[in-house]
Amino acid sequence: MKFSQRILSMQYSPIRKLVPYADEAMKSGVKVYQLHIGQPDVQTPDSFFEGLHNYKEKIIKYANSRGINELLETFSKSYHKMGINLDPEDMLITHGGSEALMFTLASICNPGEEVLVPEPYYSNYESFLRSADAKLVPIETKLENNYHLPAKEEIEKLITPRTKAIMFSNPSNPTGTVLTLKEMEMIVEIAQKHDLFIISDEVYRQFIYDDIEYKSFLNMEGVEDRVILIDSISKHYSACGARIGVIASKNKDFINLALKLCQARLSVSTIEQFASANLINTIDTYLSEVKLEYKVRRDLLYNHLNEIEGVTCYKPDSAFYIFAELPVDNIEDFVIWLLTEFRYENQTLMFAPGPGFYSTPNKGLREGRFSFCTHNLTEIENGMKVLKEALKVYKK
Amino acid sequence: MKFSQRILSMQYSPIRKLVPYADEAMKSGVKVYQLHIGQPDVQTPDSFFEGLHNYKEKIIKYANSRGINELLETFSKSYHKMGINLDPEDMLITHGGSEALMFTLASICNPGEEVLVPEPYYSNYESFLRSADAKLVPIETKLENNYHLPAKEEIEKLITPRTKAIMFSNPSNPTGTVLTLKEMEMIVEIAQKHDLFIISDEVYRQFIYDDIEYKSFLNMEGVEDRVILIDSISKHYSACGARIGVIASKNKDFINLALKLCQARLSVSTIEQFASANLINTIDTYLSEVKLEYKVRRDLLYNHLNEIEGVTCYKPDSAFYIFAELPVDNIEDFVIWLLTEFRYENQTLMFAPGPGFYSTPNKGLREGRFSFCTHNLTEIENGMKVLKEALKVYKK
Repeated sequence: MKFSQRILSMQYSPIRKLVPYADEAMKSGVKVYQLHIGQPDVQTPDSFFEGLHNYKEKIIKYANSRGINELLETFSKSYHKMGINLDPEDMLITHGGSEALMFTLASICNPGEEVLVPEPYYSNYESFLRSADAKLVPIETKLENNYHLPAKEEIEKLITPRTKAIMFSNPSNPTGTVLTLKEMEMIVEIAQKHDLFIISDEVYRQFIYDDIEYKSFLNMEGVEDRVILIDSISKHYSACGARIGVIASKNKDFINLALKLCQARLSVSTIEQFASANLINTIDTYLSEVKLEYKVRRDLLYNHLNEIEGVTCYKPDSAFYIFAELPVDNIEDFVIWLLTEFRYENQTLMFAPGPGFYSTPNKGLREGRFSFCTHNLTEIENGMKVLKEALKVYKK
Repeated sequence: MKFSQRILSMQYSPIRKLVPYADEAMKSGVKVYQLHIGQPDVQTPDSFFEGLHNYKEKIIKYANSRGINELLETFSKSYHKMGINLDPEDMLITHGGSEALMFTLASICNPGEEVLVPEPYYSNYESFLRSADAKLVPIETKLENNYHLPAKEEIEKLITPRTKAIMFSNPSNPTGTVLTLKEMEMIVEIAQKHDLFIISDEVYRQFIYDDIEYKSFLNMEGVEDRVILIDSISKHYSACGARIGVIASKNKDFINLALKLCQARLSVSTIEQFASANLINTIDTYLSEVKLEYKVRRDLLYNHLNEIEGVTCYKPDSAFYIFAELPVDNIEDFVIWLLTEFRYENQTLMFAPGPGFYSTPNKGLREGRFSFCTHNLTEIENGMKVLKEALKVYKK
């Protein structure tokens, strides 16, 4: 039986293939600090569960293909509160940011067309592009430049007649880098000059830890019809498993076309939409408390990583991760060694190897993504102690 | 801004474009019998809500990309009970039968490849094929033959080197026709001879009203590695809005490849999976009672349609619909006329026009799909009275 080239060329999750090693270690009684996980350990707000329990219908009916009005209103109100002018008719509710990205790329890219993506990037971007038979063209960014964008000419060199969009997460997963206003202006100029869409994945927007200004791409002037905002409640409200995302754009043609895909798949889970609509009633302090918790974890993780000999990293302004360079030749081998051989006081650790965040061959071989969203301070502390000891042994 | 050919070529829901006319009529106080809807009015089983209320986690976490074990076990047990040999590892949980179909076609079809589909078919099949840049090749079926398949030679004539699969709903939406064992054997022979996948959408499997034998395609011998079963709880348990579907196959390569798409989109809504897993505890009489209710509605709807002068239809063995031919030249014009002009004792009706179920131009112009899953007996009775009166007036 013959399968599609599309599915054959797609990758399995680069993290999940290491999970069996971690499972094996845990089965044998070893404590594994799982710093590869992007699943927050913070409680989902009570407002979500209240919404869930307020659901009193006796039939779980299809929802409107665009999303239920209550949820569209909730999103709209919260955007307006943040100074982003989005009304219910500018949005489509999706099954997470994932479906939002898949539907966006399917609506824009013909087979063989290209999308520019700063590298390292969220691994599934490549899968979503392949599902549309489109091609990811990486824009190189470097640790020594804190993963900020290269000069305009470097980016323009990558543009061909097949280039349709520039896509990025801002704040960035995996680097936590936030685009400067200057970088955003450069992207605007490039998009205007070369007639590109700007796909701005802002799912970490509410986790800015330092005193820097954050601006949504939807607030950039002159590109209102080019910007497609990808958003989700997953990270903001620690509700990853609700699978509630949104596609938002002021380009009415785009929204009307992407609606065809929403209609084809009928609707998004009714109850989860209903529960999510009630997030508007989340207590004001929820996000600020969560943010403070993450900031403290980031500082602790950063300080530890930074003091380990041979480790180089950038202190991220945002998101849930530190992307660090380690003094090893092949990071995946190192993680497998940690999981299968190394034990320090019956503990070891796991993190996400760098190559999974690159499409350029042989990049990220010394880098890894360490998450600080899923462990308390003691666990981060202990995990870093294990890493320090491991590197001492490994180098010999 | 330029969009993809894929999205430009996709259709909007042929039913939904008529909804504004119905809304307008209802706003003006007219009673509209909405026989276009495939949303059952039967209550979702208590077991679903019990499952929902048993969810006690404080964080809505990502589920496993394949689906949660409890739900995979529930599906596996219920398949085994029906004599279908499917284990948890043969399945992937999806967001409804819709995502199951999208992921299946994306895994099989390269751009430009073809899939044979008996016509009339569930409208979204065409959208799902277009989302994979593949082409729907219709197999003609006719009312006078109760929408059964044509001879083998007729089907084989349609096969080209680009043909990858044959796809159908069995029982059929919109016709309610159930494939005979002879037809199934013919499909098996064709699939073997021409190396095709068999995509069998069996979401109406449990609604067989008459004394005919139903066999899942997964129980056909010699094609275990070719059959992909599409299933969903939507219709069986009146839980359309839960968006819980399944891809099932004994072809391990296929399941392992489709898993890549499941991993890319991370997971299916956690709470709805949890609630659905408890459907295993549905009382034994639920399905038989629902089936009896639908059978009585079908008989009533059929008897009425059958006695209206000029209406021709087949009494469906299964599913929720009667696909009838009406004495009009253009069924869509007729439905719009019903919604905008015709009133009988301040009532009118709506149903799904035939052309939406065909890709061949000018087919279905006199046919319409009447649903009996969403109205009680009095409403069906009244709706048919309105139709009878409307046809008297319209013909003049």
